[in-house]
Amino acid sequence: MKRIAIDMDEVIANTAISLLKLFNQQYGQDVTEEELEGKSLIQARPHFRNEIKSFYTSETFFRGLDVISDSQTVILELQERYEIFIATAAMEVPASFKAKYEWLKEHFPSIPDSHIVFCGDKSIIHADYLIDDNVNQLHSFRGKGILYSTPHNRFATGFTRVDSWLDVRKLFLNKAVEVI
Amino acid sequence: MKRIAIDMDEVIANTAISLLKLFNQQYGQDVTEEELEGKSLIQARPHFRNEIKSFYTSETFFRGLDVISDSQTVILELQERYEIFIATAAMEVPASFKAKYEWLKEHFPSIPDSHIVFCGDKSIIHADYLIDDNVNQLHSFRGKGILYSTPHNRFATGFTRVDSWLDVRKLFLNKAVEVI
Repeated sequence: MKRIAIDMDEVIANTAISLLKLFNQQYGQDVTEEELEGKSLIQARPHFRNEIKSFYTSETFFRGLDVISDSQTVILELQERYEIFIATAAMEVPASFKAKYEWLKEHFPSIPDSHIVFCGDKSIIHADYLIDDNVNQLHSFRGKGILYSTPHNRFATGFTRVDSWLDVRKLFLNKAVEVI
Repeated sequence: MKRIAIDMDEVIANTAISLLKLFNQQYGQDVTEEELEGKSLIQARPHFRNEIKSFYTSETFFRGLDVISDSQTVILELQERYEIFIATAAMEVPASFKAKYEWLKEHFPSIPDSHIVFCGDKSIIHADYLIDDNVNQLHSFRGKGILYSTPHNRFATGFTRVDSWLDVRKLFLNKAVEVI
């Protein structure tokens, strides 16, 4: 059975949009999703750098993130044909450990503890595929990288790209297994 | 550069002996290290199962563990010739995340966040070697497993065995690189 590792932030958890909404509310800003094409919120509002970073050190921020559309149903379908691991670069934000774990337990109860990985550099991940929005992580990864589209990676090239979980379903399930 | 993944509990952190001492103190018992040859503390005192398990759900337990002799100096030496990751099955004990991270930052500051992994099943670890005391994890691992001796694995066979960090040094550094 082939193995797919799946990132959390921006792939199954809607981190950037949640951050954008909270930031706009809390600091009276009006940053739009369109403004974040090809850049991060910090790049869009560099003078709010510390304020934006403070969201990431809040334990509650990661606990309350929305789930990306269709990720729950498609992951359940994938689990019938693939071994699924969740692999998140949680070491960048130690305050997020507990919240990320609890969030996964709530929203993806079919993923056992044995298949959850908090890491840094994803070159350590032993899997056939990695679905991730971070181009650097996909470059580090030793298997085949699948780029999950987000505003910040809109202009990146060099990887098979999926724009939604329906795209993921099509890529991994609409054809015979092991086609990519 | 070859990559070595290193387990925490019983390999760099003296978990079982710390548990034994705390258990004896707290419950007026006199379990000896010799009694733990080939078995766990729960197997040695099954009627204290819940009490023993409660240590593992305490955040402070993992923060205060002793460092295994010579692990700090030998890991520093290994880092000159190998890429070192710490890979611990922290998902078994979610309460341990923060304490384990802080413990690593204090006692092994040369290991960057990018090279720390909290996981479950170590088949996910992409490395050339894994030094671990858990035979099941070594069987899952896809590279070469090195069994770090502890009382509970005393009778296990099938892996290259090291009895101390001086043995690790000898195995990886006293010969030309890439000999095993």
